Amino acid sequence: MRILILGGDGYLGWPTAMRFSARGHEVSVVDNFSRRRWHHEQSTDSLTPIRSLAERIEAWRDVSGREIVPFVGNLEDGEFLDRVIAETLPETVIHYGEQPSAPYSMISRRHAVETQYTNVIGNLNLLFSMRDRVPDCHLVKLGTMGEYGTPNIDIEEGFIEIHHKGRSDTLPFPKLPGSLYHLSKVHDSHNIHFACRIWGLRATDLNQGVVYGIQTEETALDDRLMTRFDYDEIFGTALNRFCVQAVIGQPLTVYGKGGQTRGFLNIRDTLQCVELAVANPAELGDFRVFNQFTEQFTVGELAQRVQKAAEQLGHTVEIQNFPNPRVEMEEHYYNAANTKLRDLGLDPHYLGPELVHSMLETIERYKGRVIQRAILPKTRWNPGELVAPSLTATPGS
Amino acid sequence: MRILILGGDGYLGWPTAMRFSARGHEVSVVDNFSRRRWHHEQSTDSLTPIRSLAERIEAWRDVSGREIVPFVGNLEDGEFLDRVIAETLPETVIHYGEQPSAPYSMISRRHAVETQYTNVIGNLNLLFSMRDRVPDCHLVKLGTMGEYGTPNIDIEEGFIEIHHKGRSDTLPFPKLPGSLYHLSKVHDSHNIHFACRIWGLRATDLNQGVVYGIQTEETALDDRLMTRFDYDEIFGTALNRFCVQAVIGQPLTVYGKGGQTRGFLNIRDTLQCVELAVANPAELGDFRVFNQFTEQFTVGELAQRVQKAAEQLGHTVEIQNFPNPRVEMEEHYYNAANTKLRDLGLDPHYLGPELVHSMLETIERYKGRVIQRAILPKTRWNPGELVAPSLTATPGS
Repeated sequence: MRILILGGDGYLGWPTAMRFSARGHEVSVVDNFSRRRWHHEQSTDSLTPIRSLAERIEAWRDVSGREIVPFVGNLEDGEFLDRVIAETLPETVIHYGEQPSAPYSMISRRHAVETQYTNVIGNLNLLFSMRDRVPDCHLVKLGTMGEYGTPNIDIEEGFIEIHHKGRSDTLPFPKLPGSLYHLSKVHDSHNIHFACRIWGLRATDLNQGVVYGIQTEETALDDRLMTRFDYDEIFGTALNRFCVQAVIGQPLTVYGKGGQTRGFLNIRDTLQCVELAVANPAELGDFRVFNQFTEQFTVGELAQRVQKAAEQLGHTVEIQNFPNPRVEMEEHYYNAANTKLRDLGLDPHYLGPELVHSMLETIERYKGRVIQRAILPKTRWNPGELVAPSLTATPGS
Repeated sequence: MRILILGGDGYLGWPTAMRFSARGHEVSVVDNFSRRRWHHEQSTDSLTPIRSLAERIEAWRDVSGREIVPFVGNLEDGEFLDRVIAETLPETVIHYGEQPSAPYSMISRRHAVETQYTNVIGNLNLLFSMRDRVPDCHLVKLGTMGEYGTPNIDIEEGFIEIHHKGRSDTLPFPKLPGSLYHLSKVHDSHNIHFACRIWGLRATDLNQGVVYGIQTEETALDDRLMTRFDYDEIFGTALNRFCVQAVIGQPLTVYGKGGQTRGFLNIRDTLQCVELAVANPAELGDFRVFNQFTEQFTVGELAQRVQKAAEQLGHTVEIQNFPNPRVEMEEHYYNAANTKLRDLGLDPHYLGPELVHSMLETIERYKGRVIQRAILPKTRWNPGELVAPSLTATPGS
């Protein structure tokens, strides 16, 4: 199958590219390296030392004997995107090519505008390119569970049957996104749904939970194939940050009360889910939504699991509540459906101590690269300075 | 009150500016004249000969002795908008400053991108300017009933109480917008809701029906104060187009079966609604949605009303079904709530024959300016050429 991966140099994009290449598909990737640029701007970096895209592709050729074809450019540039689509004629497009950070979108107006412009216009350009050049192609789009927010009812997969005043209809699940980044994904979902309804395109919107983990089958083959690992306040996710904090002897910083419940999944399961979506495409005209996570935890529970696993390896780990830089409910009902990917055969890797141990070991290896300054949150949802408490020192770590 | 009107040179914006000025408020307007530019690009024009903004403001000074202060620039230019907000320190912002046409947004990718960029980024810039400079200011935003689409349940005003699996919550009403323009308004609504929830701004989202009419109290004072009247396929709305067709002896072109039901209102009621929203502002942190229309009709009924009223004035009028350029349901359930503005005191001007007569008389006066080429639809929701039937000639008109 001809597969085009947008954002193919990213945390998930690069492992996905290798996975489909390993399975014998013709894989092309598009990237403009914005994640690398954003890290430069913040003076932060991936914990893992990652190679350039060209070096990665060379290394993959060495290791697997297979080719991944790169295109460098912006999705906001519709003519560039059109040329890529015309040249690659993809049967599946996997779209990871967006600004992926909630805090980044909240830094300032410039960052908010950049996020919504990059994501919404890039995705809109893609829909037109697909309509005009590959109308049968299946779009697999990375969305986020954060589109739903935390409603007081069960979260369904994209649509909900509403009974109202004696009538009923199945309608898009109402959205209460928690940041201007999450809003960009809501906008994308609405635009894609329209393209399916009106133009007859086909799409799967993967509303993904918070991803953790470093290794996939392919990244483990050679150090040059490593994917990025972000733990900073802007691009890091909770479990990755906690693991880094455990290794460097910083308290695990739980924002607010820690009762915030979210869906989580292992990066290995991200790949599994994307493979399942690609192998079982949506019908023409169909806009499918899959909730892509394997387990729900509160942030507080997550910290406790890391603490326990890290103590088993001899680390001394404190958990410290930290003023919440976000505006969000810290205790709430949360129950989200996630049966559609299981019905397709998803076999989850649950979060056990072995996984945390292996993350801690990888982090230990690159401990010298940790940029401590970048871990604690400075970006607030409301303007003004966050009054950060001094962290208690963790003895003996 | 200090009132800033974005899009103050437009069909509704200019009459709104005069109305609040007449009531003694300090009115400033922002416009970048894009509507005039878009007409130039399409080789179309307002039926009514409208003056430049500077001439309008001079004429208003002559007639009323009052000042309206103009600012010329783009809302997409955040620094320009910041300067305007800092200089005018508005207590109310009335935001009409968006690309308002569904067909325009469907012409091509460029037009779609321009629409979503202009509308979403302009509105996002505004939210930041308000947050940082006038956080108590009330935003009155023009949305559209088209955000809802045509669900099979009653349409509520912005929010719906959902009962689901033994729990319940009041959530944003699900949206099924019918064009990339309508989608831009959905994106705006989500962004504004976020700004109210997270930053504590206050806003009223006016989900407006299809507006008809030419005259308001203030435009009637002097020919130089006239507002624009669009009847072309891109910027014209259904009743305006039907009235022009009746006068020039062209069949009234009903798209498809004509069973499409929408909410409609007189331009005089638009002003009344906006005055009511401004006089009764939302509370800080509150995102209110008002469905702003006074009557529901099918497009077919609308054509019949124009036919009947025009025949009373001696016109011979045919109604002709025309291939629908849009993708939409042509027969469907439609029942939308519109009690919130009535509860505030809205006293509607319903669509009677007198109103149609007065529109027909105004159109008769400017009949020589009608650009016939521009009336029939060329812009399709799906790519490809629309096969347009030749219209039957209407004898004796």
